[in-house]
Amino acid sequence: MTRRPRAVVVVTGSELVRGERTDRNGPFLAAEALRHGLEPARITIVGDNPAELEAALREGLEADACLVSGGLGPTHDDRTVELLARAAGLELVVDDALEQEIETISRAFSERMRRPYVDFAPGVTKQATRPVSATSIGLAGTAPGLVLRAPTGCVAVVLPGPPGELRRLWPNAVASEPMRELLARTRPPGRRVLRLFGVSESAVARALEQAGGDGDGVEATICAREFEIHVDLVVEPGADERADRLEAGLAERLEQWLFGHDERRVEELVLSLASAHGLRLATAESCTGGMVAARLTGVPGSSASFVGGVVAYADDVKRSELDVPEELLAAHGAVSAEVAAAMAEGARARLGAEVAVSVTGVAGPDGGTPEKPVGRVYLQAAGPDGGLKRMLDLPGEREQVRVRATVTALHLLRALLTGTRDEGA
Amino acid sequence: MTRRPRAVVVVTGSELVRGERTDRNGPFLAAEALRHGLEPARITIVGDNPAELEAALREGLEADACLVSGGLGPTHDDRTVELLARAAGLELVVDDALEQEIETISRAFSERMRRPYVDFAPGVTKQATRPVSATSIGLAGTAPGLVLRAPTGCVAVVLPGPPGELRRLWPNAVASEPMRELLARTRPPGRRVLRLFGVSESAVARALEQAGGDGDGVEATICAREFEIHVDLVVEPGADERADRLEAGLAERLEQWLFGHDERRVEELVLSLASAHGLRLATAESCTGGMVAARLTGVPGSSASFVGGVVAYADDVKRSELDVPEELLAAHGAVSAEVAAAMAEGARARLGAEVAVSVTGVAGPDGGTPEKPVGRVYLQAAGPDGGLKRMLDLPGEREQVRVRATVTALHLLRALLTGTRDEGA
Repeated sequence: MTRRPRAVVVVTGSELVRGERTDRNGPFLAAEALRHGLEPARITIVGDNPAELEAALREGLEADACLVSGGLGPTHDDRTVELLARAAGLELVVDDALEQEIETISRAFSERMRRPYVDFAPGVTKQATRPVSATSIGLAGTAPGLVLRAPTGCVAVVLPGPPGELRRLWPNAVASEPMRELLARTRPPGRRVLRLFGVSESAVARALEQAGGDGDGVEATICAREFEIHVDLVVEPGADERADRLEAGLAERLEQWLFGHDERRVEELVLSLASAHGLRLATAESCTGGMVAARLTGVPGSSASFVGGVVAYADDVKRSELDVPEELLAAHGAVSAEVAAAMAEGARARLGAEVAVSVTGVAGPDGGTPEKPVGRVYLQAAGPDGGLKRMLDLPGEREQVRVRATVTALHLLRALLTGTRDEGA
Repeated sequence: MTRRPRAVVVVTGSELVRGERTDRNGPFLAAEALRHGLEPARITIVGDNPAELEAALREGLEADACLVSGGLGPTHDDRTVELLARAAGLELVVDDALEQEIETISRAFSERMRRPYVDFAPGVTKQATRPVSATSIGLAGTAPGLVLRAPTGCVAVVLPGPPGELRRLWPNAVASEPMRELLARTRPPGRRVLRLFGVSESAVARALEQAGGDGDGVEATICAREFEIHVDLVVEPGADERADRLEAGLAERLEQWLFGHDERRVEELVLSLASAHGLRLATAESCTGGMVAARLTGVPGSSASFVGGVVAYADDVKRSELDVPEELLAAHGAVSAEVAAAMAEGARARLGAEVAVSVTGVAGPDGGTPEKPVGRVYLQAAGPDGGLKRMLDLPGEREQVRVRATVTALHLLRALLTGTRDEGA
């Protein structure tokens, strides 16, 4: 097994190191590094304190690749380029071509903002300043992304902090001469993915063990995410047979919970299935308050199958918009299997959909009773050929209960549309 | 100005350093450190590679406080305690009392799982092993949180990886003897918060500059988040007057966009206002597909004011469930100010609410036309005394368009309920 070149990600931003905002660039760059055959060894988040940032960059330059995000703005607090040059022992130069390019953008901006260009000029020169051996990989606003090979041999990539801009410039970094040289030494690993629903993390860990465990060029991570279990296998070149066996062993042991071998989300699967069968979808939600509909409509093109939904929070709305009979509400309460069933049928009839899913439950923190505690949720998927129902007692706080009920509703739709037996009902 | 003691956060987890999951513990611990008067200098994320983890812990132990999350499980991959002991130069001992406590839990678990206890015994001894000077701050499952003072003088806190467990044990860490000693030296900073909507980040930066800028014991961060701008002032003890002046200066310059001086989210403000006025709320959503309703129902107790909503994705549903006239749809199209107005009135009438908000737009990536490009969104808030409308042309991808439309819808409700003039219409 060859050792992967080591990559370190350095992210700078005061609001990030103070926990006021969650960093998205570190995970993106780490995942990209791994995909290209580098080993993401560390993500360091620092603020704009120069000593802290310089120390982090110095450590980063000891790796084979140092991927840096943030601190490229026009003000004196944006010191990434200056400190990287210092840490690498490189001189700074003003890049004339870059300065002209940035000046053009800044002049247009100053006119649009009706502010004198002289306000911007110092920022322009600052942002056109680069370590002597660095090359620009394109501008994000007025900030250039840079790539250089440091005297340590490390390839350093400097990218802007805004995640959209960082992602836009990243392919240019990968295509740059120094990165191409580095990546010529790597052999990108393969990747296998298993997505499971309705099984515990520890049961998956046991199945992995029984199937032979990881190692020998296959690394497995088991990740509980939003009530699903995601198993990712990272496969070294040459270990494909071993990975095939492990994947097959896992699939066999976990068959009844396995719903995917790729990264498509359950709502995408639901919409593909509905579209393949020519069925229209609708939702009727109480405790999830629109989250199931929001997940479905998050998928581009969902309007081909999803017609709409009713968020029936008040009982009046359950009656008037979903035709849930008054007697049913009185006899069983709004949180009941009976009302869930009536909500789903009401959504089908009222919204003109063949298939609907309903959710009613106690999300908490208030509203629980001894018979129906916080976390109790009833769900119903209804279609032209029958339905699937489920009752859950979910642990956790309001948001967790809602997210898990939402994910369960989507999986119930998936199960109904695939025609699989509902193992949990 | 006193210098705050320096805190370093070390987070371990293979799936985190590889970007497969986004770390939530680092931001939590950093924000908590700052709140207690420590300076969060760095968040380091590493995997389970022992050399990388030990190096990160060694660096952490050079700070005044080193807050560690993860790697406390029962398996050989969970090496945080062992490596912390090595980095700190401390011996490891098995804690008898801790071992008994963990054994009791593990025996109960093995019975429940119907697996022999002998499978668990090695894990029990491992998890009861601690650096000689460490004390337990409580168990998360079978993993103890630990606090110790290292020979470097650093207070190290070791916490479990699952965010819920970490948050549960954190107060015990703060209350521990070594942390109390450290925090006795700190003077927790004050905090001022301004929340703005409808203004650009650069305009806020300019207002900050004009109001005197930060410095002299007041540090300002400006953060664009979900279409809002959040300004946080961290105020050193003794700098309150300076902070008052800066806050007042900002409030004066940004008055028309300022909606809050605390961290309440806009949906909480909307629900408080509705409740205070005794008004019921409803939603009518097309392109946001339930996200506005989901945000409102995310607030505990929202059922006091929010009655429900209609996700009218298909035009048929707009007609049948919101009584949008066929002629209006034909004349103006589903994405129009006229249809938005009809949707809001339909939601009021049909759902029995005094106040409703509607959203209709082109979220993309498809569906745009030259007249109504991707990102075009029409919103309408309607109440008993009139309404507020807005048209937006939002940049960005589908999810961004939807999130920004959602936030705008909530702010439109807030504006209607506070009776302020709609500056953007």
